[in-house]
Amino acid sequence: MGTMIAGGICAAQGFRAAGLHVGVKTHNVNKKDVALIVSDVPCAAAGMFTKNVVKAAPVRVTMEHLADGRARAVIANSGNANACAPRGEENARRMCAAAAKAIGCGPEEVLVASTGVIGQTLKVDVIEAGVPELDGLLARSDEASDGAAHAIMTTDTVKKEVAVRTEIGGKAVSIGGIAKGSGMIHPNMGTMLCFLTTDCAISPEMLRAALHEVVRVSFNRISVDGDTSTNDTCCVLANGLAGNKEITGKGEDYAAFVQALEEICILLARKMAKDGEGAKHLITCAVSGARDEAQAETISKSVISSTLTKAAIFGCDANWGRVLCAMGYSGEQFDPEQVDVRFASTAGTILVCEKGRGLDFDEALAKKILTEDEIAIEIAMGEGDGSCTCWGCDITYDYIKINGDYRT
Amino acid sequence: MGTMIAGGICAAQGFRAAGLHVGVKTHNVNKKDVALIVSDVPCAAAGMFTKNVVKAAPVRVTMEHLADGRARAVIANSGNANACAPRGEENARRMCAAAAKAIGCGPEEVLVASTGVIGQTLKVDVIEAGVPELDGLLARSDEASDGAAHAIMTTDTVKKEVAVRTEIGGKAVSIGGIAKGSGMIHPNMGTMLCFLTTDCAISPEMLRAALHEVVRVSFNRISVDGDTSTNDTCCVLANGLAGNKEITGKGEDYAAFVQALEEICILLARKMAKDGEGAKHLITCAVSGARDEAQAETISKSVISSTLTKAAIFGCDANWGRVLCAMGYSGEQFDPEQVDVRFASTAGTILVCEKGRGLDFDEALAKKILTEDEIAIEIAMGEGDGSCTCWGCDITYDYIKINGDYRT
Repeated sequence: MGTMIAGGICAAQGFRAAGLHVGVKTHNVNKKDVALIVSDVPCAAAGMFTKNVVKAAPVRVTMEHLADGRARAVIANSGNANACAPRGEENARRMCAAAAKAIGCGPEEVLVASTGVIGQTLKVDVIEAGVPELDGLLARSDEASDGAAHAIMTTDTVKKEVAVRTEIGGKAVSIGGIAKGSGMIHPNMGTMLCFLTTDCAISPEMLRAALHEVVRVSFNRISVDGDTSTNDTCCVLANGLAGNKEITGKGEDYAAFVQALEEICILLARKMAKDGEGAKHLITCAVSGARDEAQAETISKSVISSTLTKAAIFGCDANWGRVLCAMGYSGEQFDPEQVDVRFASTAGTILVCEKGRGLDFDEALAKKILTEDEIAIEIAMGEGDGSCTCWGCDITYDYIKINGDYRT
Repeated sequence: MGTMIAGGICAAQGFRAAGLHVGVKTHNVNKKDVALIVSDVPCAAAGMFTKNVVKAAPVRVTMEHLADGRARAVIANSGNANACAPRGEENARRMCAAAAKAIGCGPEEVLVASTGVIGQTLKVDVIEAGVPELDGLLARSDEASDGAAHAIMTTDTVKKEVAVRTEIGGKAVSIGGIAKGSGMIHPNMGTMLCFLTTDCAISPEMLRAALHEVVRVSFNRISVDGDTSTNDTCCVLANGLAGNKEITGKGEDYAAFVQALEEICILLARKMAKDGEGAKHLITCAVSGARDEAQAETISKSVISSTLTKAAIFGCDANWGRVLCAMGYSGEQFDPEQVDVRFASTAGTILVCEKGRGLDFDEALAKKILTEDEIAIEIAMGEGDGSCTCWGCDITYDYIKINGDYRT
């Protein structure tokens, strides 16, 4: 495993960042709304995007700009998703052009992302007007990463930032990332944005392969509310300044890179689930003894996505029947009479269902376990060696409050 | 269309019913918890059940008892689902035996259903002890149907009961039904129970065919919370006392029967969606201009199941972006730039999205439209002639309250 380090999105050599309030978010001038991330030198780059048929304009523009596997910078705004909005593509391109002009590169070297309300015209003028000041703020520091991490937040209550250092080909390599949730989050990417930077030397092809491997077991295994958004974007830039021998194929160096990238992405994904809109609990659902990984994943996702299970966890209620019910409608075939269910947290572990039948368990202990912030639902299926872990959160009064009146 | 009549589950000739508190629900002695529905003569019978892999014991027993397409009676309890519970099948059979003994028929002529908490042992003793009194209460009256309708309620706030009269083969035929919601409701049947009775003469085969046709466009088109329960059951008994020529094939009489049964089931399904746990609004999502009915249905279900759309409707917020987003992740391919979205209610209709782009609409009018109890989301896709209507409800603070502490 890599070593956790400070610096976030600026941890890797040659990356600078900044965040600024330019006026996309009109209701609070203290909330930053545009982030800029720049590499001093050209980078290999890769991205993964929402599978929603309705793709926001910045998603389409970024996909186009990533076609050659190269990029220099990312510009992202919060407060407006620029999805289903008038002049969406024109405005996304104007964001790239403004960043490119300030940095001194081609607009096709800039990736763009937006998050916020769907269907409203983006105030691209205020972004263009703010970019020179944003460019002036670019720095490689903890504060700079913090600024960028805050500038992409919407209903997030905490910033999501993490960095690790590892050794690849005898050289110290750093990887850092920032991300945002926290509604419209569902397996296959949510209203999530995630930007990752590394000084690792790696070819665009291997960077893309690594990102696919890692997203599958991190961001694609979380759910907040079952709504897959129009804007999900996860991009990685690799500028090669670590000086390791460029990774151009699978092998020891590639495996080390994937391991470090996976560590970062799982940490960011857990942060996203834990800070799901209104959430009070992080729910980890660990399925073991499944026929194979795919079955374990389908069942685990069904459990973390079950509104009734989420409501039970909010109530600290060991209502395991809802867990079995969610397993049962997952679409997978299995024998319910082989299933054991446990609830666990730092307060202990309790077996509540054995071979598909309810046990007389200690309700007081169960309540104590479920009162912790981070709780686990452990499912043993007794069918084979397949396992998978997914992450979600509870559904609360605050989720309804946040989403009953989000636009206004 | 048939004529709406009184009488509910007892509207058809030869059917008697009753509901009674026997003690399955311990927290409130005023809440009835066992229902009995009996035909004076043997009936053709058909049923449809949850597709959840985890099927409650009474579901399995009723499927077995329906194998010959014949039945005389239904016994159902609320307060305990008898799913994943110790001695589940034994206890379901004991319920059938108790009813059979009281009525004077074979236990295999009795259908059984349960709804309530999963995983706890059913107090079958108190049901057995109560059946003779329940049998003594059997009557053919509005009050008797009302008693049975109340006895199957869990978190429902209103009873669901409806009956119509139509003419088939020159004879007056009545069909009546009772049903219950109101959580764990999702397309492909919810924690719903629905019992239908008719005096129509129809063969078991044609009764089964009619039920399948009708459930597809009624109960399978509603969602409360996306959780498909372990206990869903919809049974119909047809005793032939109307004296029409028995329906043994498709034709005019069959079509008239299906039309009346569909009318009943759509009304009951709408009642279920409207009384979804904690719901303040019935949401009707009507998709037109789709490639075909299947595409329209998938998209309509995705919209009514979207937690974010449900939260927006709770807030009377015309947040159509969430509608487009839910269409986009439905799994169907379509061109977002052909989509129009309108919100409608008795207060008016407003176009909010045209050809996939947001319009500057009158927010005050939109708010007025969405403040009504029953609101419609009308989606025109501009691709073909396919259409479908599904029903759902908003998600509210009360949903969280009800489900955060349901077991205790």
